[in-house]
Amino acid sequence: MIKKKDSLVEKERNRQDLGFGTKMTDRQTRLITGNGLFNVRRVGQSFEAWLNLYNRLITIRWSTFIAMVFILYLILNLFFASLYYLIGVEHLVGVNMSNPVSQFWDAFFFSAQSLTTVGYGRIAPVGFLASFVAAFEALSGLMLFAFITGLLYGRFSRPNPRILFSRNAIIAPYLDTNAFMFRMVNEKSNQIINMTVSLDFSRVEEKNGVRNRQYYSLTLERSKVNFFPTNWTIVHAITEESPLYGETAESLAEVDAEFMISTEGVDDTFADVVHKRHSYFNDELIWGAKFKPMLETNHDESYILDLRKIHNYDLVSLNP
Amino acid sequence: MIKKKDSLVEKERNRQDLGFGTKMTDRQTRLITGNGLFNVRRVGQSFEAWLNLYNRLITIRWSTFIAMVFILYLILNLFFASLYYLIGVEHLVGVNMSNPVSQFWDAFFFSAQSLTTVGYGRIAPVGFLASFVAAFEALSGLMLFAFITGLLYGRFSRPNPRILFSRNAIIAPYLDTNAFMFRMVNEKSNQIINMTVSLDFSRVEEKNGVRNRQYYSLTLERSKVNFFPTNWTIVHAITEESPLYGETAESLAEVDAEFMISTEGVDDTFADVVHKRHSYFNDELIWGAKFKPMLETNHDESYILDLRKIHNYDLVSLNP
Amino acid sequence: MIKKKDSLVEKERNRQDLGFGTKMTDRQTRLITGNGLFNVRRVGQSFEAWLNLYNRLITIRWSTFIAMVFILYLILNLFFASLYYLIGVEHLVGVNMSNPVSQFWDAFFFSAQSLTTVGYGRIAPVGFLASFVAAFEALSGLMLFAFITGLLYGRFSRPNPRILFSRNAIIAPYLDTNAFMFRMVNEKSNQIINMTVSLDFSRVEEKNGVRNRQYYSLTLERSKVNFFPTNWTIVHAITEESPLYGETAESLAEVDAEFMISTEGVDDTFADVVHKRHSYFNDELIWGAKFKPMLETNHDESYILDLRKIHNYDLVSLNP
Amino acid sequence: MIKKKDSLVEKERNRQDLGFGTKMTDRQTRLITGNGLFNVRRVGQSFEAWLNLYNRLITIRWSTFIAMVFILYLILNLFFASLYYLIGVEHLVGVNMSNPVSQFWDAFFFSAQSLTTVGYGRIAPVGFLASFVAAFEALSGLMLFAFITGLLYGRFSRPNPRILFSRNAIIAPYLDTNAFMFRMVNEKSNQIINMTVSLDFSRVEEKNGVRNRQYYSLTLERSKVNFFPTNWTIVHAITEESPLYGETAESLAEVDAEFMISTEGVDDTFADVVHKRHSYFNDELIWGAKFKPMLETNHDESYILDLRKIHNYDLVSLNP
Repeated sequence: MIKKKDSLVEKERNRQDLGFGTKMTDRQTRLITGNGLFNVRRVGQSFEAWLNLYNRLITIRWSTFIAMVFILYLILNLFFASLYYLIGVEHLVGVNMSNPVSQFWDAFFFSAQSLTTVGYGRIAPVGFLASFVAAFEALSGLMLFAFITGLLYGRFSRPNPRILFSRNAIIAPYLDTNAFMFRMVNEKSNQIINMTVSLDFSRVEEKNGVRNRQYYSLTLERSKVNFFPTNWTIVHAITEESPLYGETAESLAEVDAEFMISTEGVDDTFADVVHKRHSYFNDELIWGAKFKPMLETNHDESYILDLRKIHNYDLVSLNP
Repeated sequence: MIKKKDSLVEKERNRQDLGFGTKMTDRQTRLITGNGLFNVRRVGQSFEAWLNLYNRLITIRWSTFIAMVFILYLILNLFFASLYYLIGVEHLVGVNMSNPVSQFWDAFFFSAQSLTTVGYGRIAPVGFLASFVAAFEALSGLMLFAFITGLLYGRFSRPNPRILFSRNAIIAPYLDTNAFMFRMVNEKSNQIINMTVSLDFSRVEEKNGVRNRQYYSLTLERSKVNFFPTNWTIVHAITEESPLYGETAESLAEVDAEFMISTEGVDDTFADVVHKRHSYFNDELIWGAKFKPMLETNHDESYILDLRKIHNYDLVSLNP
Repeated sequence: MIKKKDSLVEKERNRQDLGFGTKMTDRQTRLITGNGLFNVRRVGQSFEAWLNLYNRLITIRWSTFIAMVFILYLILNLFFASLYYLIGVEHLVGVNMSNPVSQFWDAFFFSAQSLTTVGYGRIAPVGFLASFVAAFEALSGLMLFAFITGLLYGRFSRPNPRILFSRNAIIAPYLDTNAFMFRMVNEKSNQIINMTVSLDFSRVEEKNGVRNRQYYSLTLERSKVNFFPTNWTIVHAITEESPLYGETAESLAEVDAEFMISTEGVDDTFADVVHKRHSYFNDELIWGAKFKPMLETNHDESYILDLRKIHNYDLVSLNP
Repeated sequence: MIKKKDSLVEKERNRQDLGFGTKMTDRQTRLITGNGLFNVRRVGQSFEAWLNLYNRLITIRWSTFIAMVFILYLILNLFFASLYYLIGVEHLVGVNMSNPVSQFWDAFFFSAQSLTTVGYGRIAPVGFLASFVAAFEALSGLMLFAFITGLLYGRFSRPNPRILFSRNAIIAPYLDTNAFMFRMVNEKSNQIINMTVSLDFSRVEEKNGVRNRQYYSLTLERSKVNFFPTNWTIVHAITEESPLYGETAESLAEVDAEFMISTEGVDDTFADVVHKRHSYFNDELIWGAKFKPMLETNHDESYILDLRKIHNYDLVSLNP
């Protein structure tokens, strides 16, 4: 009795799980998207967790970021211009008083000159209220640009590896058997070192009418390289021990097979640890193919790596 | 004799200790508070260690931080305004000389315009002393805002995981035995990877009339996941080897039992290593319960995780 | 013959070395100073390596740092003031032309107003040369304060653990033998986790008339704690296997014995890894002592740790 | 049959590979250059990956960086000056209208005063268009200097170890055999700890007419030191197990032998992990030499390390 308990507990302990659990068995839904993101949407987050302001401002596109800065600048100036207008533009010396529109615009430009602390002084505040708002605006401006300084640094200094993965994984002849292969390359000229990769295979298995997702880690020919200077073809030999042994394109499609890749390396410029995930769904797998070489020797000072060839392969017949 | 020595030394070496030592046996006092902080207060710190300025300014609430900046701005301007007033406002051209109050306010606003380096110039220093103080103030302002820039960056870029823990730990039926369980989830939409968790159990044991706190690490069904996309239920099976075997709510209360959790993961946005501690006191334990599912499949593009359900459980009967 | 070769190579491979090598056998010279620094001075560094500007500006005292900023500000303004004076102060409108001294000071303050970008405009450049220098000065000022912003952030954000070590290491009775002990505590209220410590013993050994320094790592009762909330007494039991077995104060003095400590932990505020080294020379060792407790239970919400007691011990007699 | 499959797969799995692959067999081309960079040039990068702006601006020389800032400043001011000139300098009050050249220069200096936010106000915008451009320019200036602030911080705070390697590796007598040796030293006065080093040997091997590059990791006498205070001589004993056993200068030249070094350590100032690569080509190897000592004991407070002697060796005869 106790034996059985232990053995059940032991068995569950040995089951592999990447962290997705067994319940994700939906036909139409991948576990990891093309960008390497987990395919899970959260609801019921607190406002702060949902907003996640810094992260969001760090990860949005540059064009969006620049546009947001300009729009914020416009809004703040409109807000403060309105404030000065309400206080009365007569408290700003130098304003063109000819008509309300030019008054407002001069208030607007005075605001811009205060927010950026350029403060030409052609327009300047007199009296308590206008001076007070201007003092407050200059402080706000400094805090805002302090924040933007931090954001710019954060955006640029964020470890941002550009690891390219071949569009398809392939099943290729390998030694006297076949192998699951894909390749990846560092697109940037940065030095990446101590690169490790792990490859997991997931499929849905039905038992007693219950569909559960199961995970298997696939043994690699080589899971770490000290240096990552060129393309690296990751190879899982389909020996008899492999969970892929005997599978076909059809059988993999039937069980919603997905291949998940985790990589980790060190970008030498800042000694940043960089991570990247990728996933190949079973329909992105080419059966019977061989990657074309990317490296060229030009008998010159350095080797040449042609990144445009990363996705290229030739169709070949597999080993029996 | 030597055998005994060795065996005593060996035995002590094998005793587990999380770092709290054996002396913390007070009935009313937890080891780790609800926020995951150590429940120890320091006295006799040096001023510098007590102040811990940067840390303090990084960890206070945003509202407090903003308020402190404004108050500091006010104080600095009052200080410099007084200085200019003492030097004589006649050394500031453009000051409204009609009465002392307006003189002081103009000195105040001149100070604000110098500190922020907006420097409209409507009011400007003439003569050595006023010019000197203004030159010093502008430098101080720049250093102050340089510091605030750093603080803002530090506050935002600090690894700040929002790991939610279920309010209660539960004793739930598990396979053909029972298990101690709690669950946790990443509240943010950031990707957390390589998440590890360790669970320790502590109780007070009396021996020869001396109460000592002892620590036991609890074996987990799974102590690491590569990815942390959804909720993760951490499971310690109460087999015969478990220190919890045969315990009841009453027996745990008697020995001041506390369960301590350490987690570590990598937030992928910045490749930050993030740590989080948590603790369940014995009175936060529900005997005979089962967590309600949080994940929903909507047969759509992505899975849905409802964070509001993290604390929810159903009462069930335990395995014998 | 080959056997012998292998055995010599193997033996050398097994010799412990902390990195100081065997040649540091000078009587008067410690390996590690009281501040945990290596006691080695470099000559023949390149200018850049010697200057090590950023590191130096990050690690100097705050008072020195502030003084340097002020002196640099003064020097830069004197330099630019001289430049404006050479160009001719008549190219600065608003300068008090009454005498050369006031001319120079107005040039000086104009420089300060340009460098800080406060730019009141009471004094302003006219003509190409003065305008050009002013444009250059404003740029220099911005770059300078950009640099100072970085320095301030670097100074504050640098992992700066304040680990206090007991002034003396002690030889104390321990179980039924004796032990080498010292203790340490985190002076700040930050949470430090995953703290590890290693203790090495070094002495000079003479063989065939050659004095060589040898190193021995000492086994600890406990070399890692998950949490570091209170004082931690590090214990090396002097069993028969210990290189300290049978040693006395006199015998240790004779061989220039030094005990070297390396600690590593994670400061939880920023998930910074922090390192600290320390060393006890043989004359800092108290034979026959016991540390006084530092932790107090006040039956209140939290435990109290009195840091002032870290160095306190009672003299006791040792086990035989 | 299956046996054979497994054995081939197993054999390939055991082949060492640093990440360069087997195809880099060109005679004239090193794998790692003198600066420790991978000798591979990428073509076909995306523009963004090629530009790699932040990395580039962080790693260029200081003189280039400063020059680029000045040139950018000049270009931006010329651009905005042209804009103001097109709008009409009559919209800038205070401009010297005497001739087009002085008009342009005043527009230029007004631009500089806006970009740096110094804004004296002697020249100031009036009217919508000029004011609008000025408001936009001040914003651009702030963003630009925010960016430069980040760059300066990034440049300075980047982990930048200065590990010096001896110009030559040597084959030296060692115990009763010979050894491959080189030495390295930390040129800066920073404390480097937990230093590890790995040494790999690569040669081209021909098999069935195919030239393949093979890699062998060389066993070191010592591959880690806790502290790195002085010079460290890395030693690979050429025992019978060594792939260098029986090799000569000629035989190594024939197979394009290259020795590759990877080091990793922790710079204690910021707890930065630092990496450094180096490579000795077979023609940089001195057969029969011994390094001269660098450390001096002056019976004073500290030991003296003379960095100028790092490359110095004496010729000696090798063990048979």
